[in-house]
Amino acid sequence: MAGSTFGTIFTVTTWGESHGPAIGVVVDGCPAGLPLCADDIQQDLDLRRPGQSAYTTPRKEKDQVSILSGVFEGRTTGTPISLIVYNEDHHSADYSQIQDIYRPGHADYTFDQKYGFRDYRGGGRSSARETIGRVAAGAIARKVLTTLGITVQAYATAIGPVKIDMTAFDATEIRRNPFCLPDADAAKKAETFVQDCMSRQDSAGGIIECIADGLPAGLGQPVFDKLDAKLAQAIMSIGAVKGVEIGDGFAASESTGSDNNDSFCVEHSANAGAASAHITKKTNHAGGILGGISDGSRLIIRAAFKPTPSIRTEQNTVNRTGESIKLSIGGRHDPLVVPRAVIVVEAMTALTLVDLLLQNMGSRMEYLERIYR
Amino acid sequence: MAGSTFGTIFTVTTWGESHGPAIGVVVDGCPAGLPLCADDIQQDLDLRRPGQSAYTTPRKEKDQVSILSGVFEGRTTGTPISLIVYNEDHHSADYSQIQDIYRPGHADYTFDQKYGFRDYRGGGRSSARETIGRVAAGAIARKVLTTLGITVQAYATAIGPVKIDMTAFDATEIRRNPFCLPDADAAKKAETFVQDCMSRQDSAGGIIECIADGLPAGLGQPVFDKLDAKLAQAIMSIGAVKGVEIGDGFAASESTGSDNNDSFCVEHSANAGAASAHITKKTNHAGGILGGISDGSRLIIRAAFKPTPSIRTEQNTVNRTGESIKLSIGGRHDPLVVPRAVIVVEAMTALTLVDLLLQNMGSRMEYLERIYR
Amino acid sequence: MAGSTFGTIFTVTTWGESHGPAIGVVVDGCPAGLPLCADDIQQDLDLRRPGQSAYTTPRKEKDQVSILSGVFEGRTTGTPISLIVYNEDHHSADYSQIQDIYRPGHADYTFDQKYGFRDYRGGGRSSARETIGRVAAGAIARKVLTTLGITVQAYATAIGPVKIDMTAFDATEIRRNPFCLPDADAAKKAETFVQDCMSRQDSAGGIIECIADGLPAGLGQPVFDKLDAKLAQAIMSIGAVKGVEIGDGFAASESTGSDNNDSFCVEHSANAGAASAHITKKTNHAGGILGGISDGSRLIIRAAFKPTPSIRTEQNTVNRTGESIKLSIGGRHDPLVVPRAVIVVEAMTALTLVDLLLQNMGSRMEYLERIYR
Amino acid sequence: MAGSTFGTIFTVTTWGESHGPAIGVVVDGCPAGLPLCADDIQQDLDLRRPGQSAYTTPRKEKDQVSILSGVFEGRTTGTPISLIVYNEDHHSADYSQIQDIYRPGHADYTFDQKYGFRDYRGGGRSSARETIGRVAAGAIARKVLTTLGITVQAYATAIGPVKIDMTAFDATEIRRNPFCLPDADAAKKAETFVQDCMSRQDSAGGIIECIADGLPAGLGQPVFDKLDAKLAQAIMSIGAVKGVEIGDGFAASESTGSDNNDSFCVEHSANAGAASAHITKKTNHAGGILGGISDGSRLIIRAAFKPTPSIRTEQNTVNRTGESIKLSIGGRHDPLVVPRAVIVVEAMTALTLVDLLLQNMGSRMEYLERIYR
Repeated sequence: MAGSTFGTIFTVTTWGESHGPAIGVVVDGCPAGLPLCADDIQQDLDLRRPGQSAYTTPRKEKDQVSILSGVFEGRTTGTPISLIVYNEDHHSADYSQIQDIYRPGHADYTFDQKYGFRDYRGGGRSSARETIGRVAAGAIARKVLTTLGITVQAYATAIGPVKIDMTAFDATEIRRNPFCLPDADAAKKAETFVQDCMSRQDSAGGIIECIADGLPAGLGQPVFDKLDAKLAQAIMSIGAVKGVEIGDGFAASESTGSDNNDSFCVEHSANAGAASAHITKKTNHAGGILGGISDGSRLIIRAAFKPTPSIRTEQNTVNRTGESIKLSIGGRHDPLVVPRAVIVVEAMTALTLVDLLLQNMGSRMEYLERIYR
Repeated sequence: MAGSTFGTIFTVTTWGESHGPAIGVVVDGCPAGLPLCADDIQQDLDLRRPGQSAYTTPRKEKDQVSILSGVFEGRTTGTPISLIVYNEDHHSADYSQIQDIYRPGHADYTFDQKYGFRDYRGGGRSSARETIGRVAAGAIARKVLTTLGITVQAYATAIGPVKIDMTAFDATEIRRNPFCLPDADAAKKAETFVQDCMSRQDSAGGIIECIADGLPAGLGQPVFDKLDAKLAQAIMSIGAVKGVEIGDGFAASESTGSDNNDSFCVEHSANAGAASAHITKKTNHAGGILGGISDGSRLIIRAAFKPTPSIRTEQNTVNRTGESIKLSIGGRHDPLVVPRAVIVVEAMTALTLVDLLLQNMGSRMEYLERIYR
Repeated sequence: MAGSTFGTIFTVTTWGESHGPAIGVVVDGCPAGLPLCADDIQQDLDLRRPGQSAYTTPRKEKDQVSILSGVFEGRTTGTPISLIVYNEDHHSADYSQIQDIYRPGHADYTFDQKYGFRDYRGGGRSSARETIGRVAAGAIARKVLTTLGITVQAYATAIGPVKIDMTAFDATEIRRNPFCLPDADAAKKAETFVQDCMSRQDSAGGIIECIADGLPAGLGQPVFDKLDAKLAQAIMSIGAVKGVEIGDGFAASESTGSDNNDSFCVEHSANAGAASAHITKKTNHAGGILGGISDGSRLIIRAAFKPTPSIRTEQNTVNRTGESIKLSIGGRHDPLVVPRAVIVVEAMTALTLVDLLLQNMGSRMEYLERIYR
Repeated sequence: MAGSTFGTIFTVTTWGESHGPAIGVVVDGCPAGLPLCADDIQQDLDLRRPGQSAYTTPRKEKDQVSILSGVFEGRTTGTPISLIVYNEDHHSADYSQIQDIYRPGHADYTFDQKYGFRDYRGGGRSSARETIGRVAAGAIARKVLTTLGITVQAYATAIGPVKIDMTAFDATEIRRNPFCLPDADAAKKAETFVQDCMSRQDSAGGIIECIADGLPAGLGQPVFDKLDAKLAQAIMSIGAVKGVEIGDGFAASESTGSDNNDSFCVEHSANAGAASAHITKKTNHAGGILGGISDGSRLIIRAAFKPTPSIRTEQNTVNRTGESIKLSIGGRHDPLVVPRAVIVVEAMTALTLVDLLLQNMGSRMEYLERIYR
């Protein structure tokens, strides 16, 4: 695999550069018969679109998606779904002055080292616009999950040093503040912090948490394609992510076995009049994964985002020939990527889950007999 | 892929259960002409073997490896290298009393949910013995790296709440104390902490850091198979790992762009009398990866390990039929997995690097011309 | 893999239906630095375009290709190359009368069985228009091969029962007659045969042979990804192909070891004044492959194409609900697919060769040292 | 993939050389709950074992298989199944005199060219003993198929120029004659032909046909992983195969659309008293595959095997340094590979079918709902 494809059965292949004519994705292996229209995808794309608050870039990008294949009479056909978003005004900018400069924190130098040269316009392939393909594909994965009663939701738990108070968690707050924080107080503190950053022409990072509910136990392939391992790859492959954790994550390393182990218990429930009992866990330090396989509890994954590398503050760097350069990056850049990355984290989580749901269908002979006999 | 294979060109397929007759690995895609003998592999296996200190399980396992294929007259032939380690005394234990019990923090429940039943003897496929295949394959990957001047080294940076002092870092300490801590003072504190845990019949976790030096810039495939993404998958796929970070990791989320960006600069060196200059970075918050591609600086990756779930302290759980059970896990278990996991982290890092080195060979037309014209 | 992707390192993902808005392909893993423009690709697409003779469909399709990504300043960048061809007048046709009918020799029934329903317009995903993506990607692969001194050429060796006389082989004839036959006499006989077929409202098949010259010895991965095995998959995946053979193929089954074995010998040549000698074979019954690996001789592969299933002659069939139907397929269909398939066979051969060239770069430690030290 | 692995979900990784200590295979992705014991596998291995007639090598190889993992209490666990066969007396032979010689029709030269050197003992990795792994894995695949009511059977249809009379087809004959011919008369003629070959110290080839009954319609992934394409790869990857065809194969190229198209019709059957009707085809020129997807009819695939390259007749060749050599290959070699290859063709067919059965489980949303809701 050359790196632009993700997934084993439900495969996603993204393509496109920031300043090429278009950006897109091919989703192969989507089960046939899923109701799908462009609006289903546009909804998610609109959540990553810039210009939605004072704290994201004021660039105007409509990012209108078209479905080019794989959907017929409102349902997926089982064949590749090709999605395209045309880049607007991609001819306008003049990037010639930065074509030889290596911006700190960016991939300019490493692309040159890997390929011998690079498309230097607006980050080229390593631009955040590459996530358009991920979000568009993720919207399809989300529809598959919804059909099966599985939901995926992400939100920020920290903006720079400002953390949310977990006991004040309020899901309805998430899309009410510009930082996707599920805590109104934290959102106010974050606003002060980010405004301060912006006034110093600097940028900030943060943490995004993603949860999935309704997952059946049993997802994740043993050993290398564990649910947590594939999620770690999926999330770490997002541009600015520098860390990933599951459940208690790094905090678990300071805990003890007796505290960190989640006891199993039986939960009694009454559905439609009939009493039933099922095995569950009293706590969820594990974040819904044991031995790399979903345990039926809530899935919890967390990602650390570094501060946006594009800052107006003057920086020292060199150019292609090794000359020292002073660099101040103008233009309209996000002071923090977290708000627009929330939907990207959801997308990568959904893509991983659908692929593992499909892989898991072959885990028992009785499943084959259910389909084929 | 069914989950037991890792890698695209340099592929590793592990097999075997804790209490089956043997455990092993098939390494396919190893370049021909690499000098290799069983001792090269045994050295690394000996580092994960139990019984090397008071803080690992006193179980006796020789874990003697045999090369069954792919090596001829002391060199790899380019064909699959099959490695096998026979399990000793695998018939002795009596696991019938735990076959229906779901141990907290273990994969008993999730294996039953995924497959309908499980090999319950000693953890079966989810036993830590599965890492024998990883370490054996990793030893081969390490030899490939060494030939190219690349070194990989891991060590603990924390045992439970005890952290090393980075300014006191001493690589020679790593294999001198039972915790693989590169800091003699921290090792003493860790000893106290772990002894206390053990006296309370409890267990501990910790953090392992792994560095690679001598890496060429350019490794990592764009988008989904980024160097950090594949490392995250590789490391998170190790049994007890709950978090992975690159460079500054989670701390980067609290930093600002002006602090976190690493400035590029030119380094002048004199090799064999000839002066040369190359581009490098003044700092390394990024941990050697920019845009998912190695930048030629030191690679830094960190993994959080949860406390060993097997503890003698009594725990609440249920059995297969949902009855409540009190469980105290006897037997000889590691009070912490970190010391024996150090070599596993090195192995997974080495495997990832070799696969990406091979994938990167096709990144430029000039490389093809260097081989084929 | 969901089936629309081919290749391990040089990967090709096609998408699109006959009557959707567009059809396209994403080529990932193309080495950076290859000169490439739309014309390079258009040339090959023009060779599969209909309407070039009386013996292909008179449908008008311009099939104009656009490069949407992966090429910058006239060279490939190493990132995915997205190619698109818009379908013209795709709204015009009325397919409602065939939506429930299962056309003999077509994939209508099997798509319904696999997916529950299908895009019935013009064959949908199983239309011959799907080969546009293959040919477009193949043109890029061909450029890689040309750079390395490797040529790929296909031609017909039989049209229905009319075979060429191999002793009269004339490569300059191939594009001079409408059947791509390298033998002017056979072309005249084929014309008579096909006209007769057409007058009976029937269709014909044929055989295409493809050769590659300049291949280095050593291509092909052992065991399952042998050069001949991957070529067989590549060629058999073309719609109407029912058989594939290498070198003497089926005829070899009637030969004896002493006749079929190709003796090795030494060939002396004088290049640029310097005499040199290299090992070659006296004959080439093997078609350039021994043990699944190229031997440096000419590669020879042959494919059998069935007659076009769309015929005006009345046929018996059933509809979705099992009612008996009389069917006469009108419209503009190729009376034989061979002429337009010649470039498709070249494309699939070129794609296979480039992927195996890239995979082979990791076969020896000395190749790694040539790139990395 | 480095070439020793086949399959996407049901994956098979073979390893081992002719004269190494052992040969084996790892089967990953086998559904859990399949009853399996060593005897199930030994039965198939016994059919490829030499020494069963005057027309196969008299070498004695017991080829006793052991299951090293993945089976617990008589059922597969869903984890990798590792199978091993120890090579006997692998130290005895002296191959030093052929280590520098390139045997015609063998892979000696191409392995040297690919890897720089080779394990020259008995063909090394390209020995026919490599098929032990395929047959062992194929036995597991066959058990999966049997559970679903699918059977796979292969037999010879030609030994050299001797063809069977299809109207005299008698399945009970297949294992009654040493050539696996389903026609007693043809078997007698074959005997005369092969004895004649042997008396001239020469060898013969032949054709093997394989059929599968009970296949559901719908198997095969569109475009590149079509059922026929994957079968073509699978079968062509067997050592001596030079051609593969489906249904009428090469003969279809001489047919016309009106003859070659199979009409759909409705078949009425009475099962357990209840009348039912299903769509089928009146003829089966297509060999059970339309558009790369199984159509519910009998699957028919045919493979051409070249004559055994190892012959006692003197041949011209060269050695590593290019010197001309006269070579007569002594030892105990099969005068024809067809009889022992019959089970190999069945194995590769079964492996392909099971992998595509598993992949197909994700083709419809309703299948996901059947498993997960």
